Amino acid sequence: MGTDDRWTVPVTFERMWADLVPIGRSASSGGYFRSPWTSVDAELRAWFVAAAKSRGLAVEVDGVGNVLAWWRPDGVDGPGVLTGSHLDSVPDGGAYDGPLGVVAALAAFDLLRERGVVPARPIGVGVFAEEEGSRFGLACLGSRLAFGAMSWTVARELTDRDGVRLPDALEACGLGGGPLSTDLASRVACFVELHVEQGRDLVDRSAAVGVASEIWPHGRYRFDVTGEANHAGTTRMEDRRDPMLTYAMTALAANKQARLVGARATFGRIEVTPNGTNAVPSRVRAWLDARASSDAALADLLAVVERQSTEQASRDGTSVTVTPESVSGSVAFDASLAARIAADHEGGDWPVIATQAGHDAGILSAAGIPTAMLFVRNPTGVSHSPAEHAETSDCLVGVSALADTLERLAG
Amino acid sequence: MGTDDRWTVPVTFERMWADLVPIGRSASSGGYFRSPWTSVDAELRAWFVAAAKSRGLAVEVDGVGNVLAWWRPDGVDGPGVLTGSHLDSVPDGGAYDGPLGVVAALAAFDLLRERGVVPARPIGVGVFAEEEGSRFGLACLGSRLAFGAMSWTVARELTDRDGVRLPDALEACGLGGGPLSTDLASRVACFVELHVEQGRDLVDRSAAVGVASEIWPHGRYRFDVTGEANHAGTTRMEDRRDPMLTYAMTALAANKQARLVGARATFGRIEVTPNGTNAVPSRVRAWLDARASSDAALADLLAVVERQSTEQASRDGTSVTVTPESVSGSVAFDASLAARIAADHEGGDWPVIATQAGHDAGILSAAGIPTAMLFVRNPTGVSHSPAEHAETSDCLVGVSALADTLERLAG
Repeated sequence: MGTDDRWTVPVTFERMWADLVPIGRSASSGGYFRSPWTSVDAELRAWFVAAAKSRGLAVEVDGVGNVLAWWRPDGVDGPGVLTGSHLDSVPDGGAYDGPLGVVAALAAFDLLRERGVVPARPIGVGVFAEEEGSRFGLACLGSRLAFGAMSWTVARELTDRDGVRLPDALEACGLGGGPLSTDLASRVACFVELHVEQGRDLVDRSAAVGVASEIWPHGRYRFDVTGEANHAGTTRMEDRRDPMLTYAMTALAANKQARLVGARATFGRIEVTPNGTNAVPSRVRAWLDARASSDAALADLLAVVERQSTEQASRDGTSVTVTPESVSGSVAFDASLAARIAADHEGGDWPVIATQAGHDAGILSAAGIPTAMLFVRNPTGVSHSPAEHAETSDCLVGVSALADTLERLAG
Repeated sequence: MGTDDRWTVPVTFERMWADLVPIGRSASSGGYFRSPWTSVDAELRAWFVAAAKSRGLAVEVDGVGNVLAWWRPDGVDGPGVLTGSHLDSVPDGGAYDGPLGVVAALAAFDLLRERGVVPARPIGVGVFAEEEGSRFGLACLGSRLAFGAMSWTVARELTDRDGVRLPDALEACGLGGGPLSTDLASRVACFVELHVEQGRDLVDRSAAVGVASEIWPHGRYRFDVTGEANHAGTTRMEDRRDPMLTYAMTALAANKQARLVGARATFGRIEVTPNGTNAVPSRVRAWLDARASSDAALADLLAVVERQSTEQASRDGTSVTVTPESVSGSVAFDASLAARIAADHEGGDWPVIATQAGHDAGILSAAGIPTAMLFVRNPTGVSHSPAEHAETSDCLVGVSALADTLERLAG
């Protein structure tokens, strides 16, 4: 099967990739709008279920649309090795963030079968819902619910920016909602997520693949700045209570502080009320995405930004409240698992690197499941953008690396 | 009719006001959402047509929904004295900006009839469409079209923020669109618009009513700041091209410059792409509303803001383009008309004051029609806000002042 080894998996990888390319793609930007629990999302889930069933995998869909597909050879049972990722995207996002881990997992299964491997443990592929948190504001919502990091009692009260409640969004998709069964964690022996790198660490190291050491802590904080609506022409500058000024200063302060301490801070989302050209706004609501190298550093960053914002509000005659919408602590992945995955390869060990991006892997790790991540080189580091890219040759190295890893872990 | 003089008009004024209060009012904010060419707008227009017809006025509706209602006593013809205002609002606006001028006009007609006045010229009430420019971005769109300040060829290409074209919006309202007949200017001898004051000049002067001397020039400029979408966690601060930073600095610079030169500058409307919490935006589009005491001062203000924005863009690795969406030059109202209106009243002359707000009166004045404005005191100066207010007693002084003015001009 020497020739087939080189050719069959590349062909199945590229075919799966071609299946996904048109789903949820904007003709104008080339970016993806794969919002969870929409018709696009349902199409992605249907594609995965069909791809898994065509491989003879046993498919499970839970009440929020997490899908697991298991390869259980006859007589093989017990806790399994899980891989997988997600298929949703940020608005106008890239093709690779999420789907690469799903497609690579199925292609790795194909490769293991070509190699004649029969795993001694079950191997599964998971597709987790709403990883990006683009709709309900909470990243990794699907995996949080599946692994008990969030209760259904809390989740059922979530609403999206149009006021749609999560249970209604699920029902519109034919999904039953929660509470989910709690036995999944006991059925997963370990988890390995393959993901496109979202920085340029592997480019700098001239490596096609790497292994994750940790995920930085990550918070999303809503800043509500309240002022007083007024006429943009007749209201003297000194009589205004303009929340846009407080917001603008806050956005600049967050950027400056993140630069100073080597962290990340971004205001990428804003809602202005009433958002009229000739009206001083009554309210500006904006979301800070902040990440730092430790939980303490993240708390310090937020404290500085909040203090500067509050001081500015007092100068502007406005008021500001800060609400944490989701805060994920630092995740240190299982070091022995990472070492076992990274060591003893032709051409040397794979590099072990940190990431500043949240992933479902962080949720599973926090749930006590030994967890690792594989990254595939991103030539520009650009992500969450239509320009996000990975070379197909690197993706195929990733497929092979994932197959090697699954073989080690399930052997 | 002495007793009736004091009581009949207050009752009809308050009844009309009560008719309008619920139309387009938000139960949560108490503000008004009277967007043009919507069902709310159609209801307002229907109310006015019915109120005018019940007074025996001759009603004309043109293709964009401007409504004129004429009082033409038998044998009275030729160019008339026009009053009126508008019924649309900014999003979450106040009750008085526009409607007060319409209700006061009808109440003034009632008062003239009570006084037994028979005008020697026709007197009309106009209700002009889309004065605020809240939907199609161009203030005074209805009066511009009616008085030739804008051609239908240009207007038909306008689209609202949902991409609806103006002709389709009009058709959905049962209006035929343009081009409008061009004889209206020749049928209007002079125009007097009554309006709630949008500042506190009359409060400072302890006057219930005043007369306008001029309208400051006013521009709306769209700032398109383009950067590069990217991941909010993994992208190093120094690798970003974040248009939000350029925007934030621009908003602060505009505010500072307006304070320095005694002008007005407001960023009240913004659209962020993709507007996701965990994505550095690819684009921020924001609208500057700027006003100054002369055309040159306005141009200088814009030039300073644009230069500072461009310099900041170069530091941020972004680019900025500035597009004027509407620029209205300074309007000096007819000084002799203002003097004639303001002089010789019991209790002394009415004050003559400038305004920083655009009005349909500015369009008619620019079209060569002798034009004046009456302002009614606003106790807080707040406008374009649910908190906008005028005391009913002051509104009734305004009705009486408008009746006196119409009697002088049509006598």
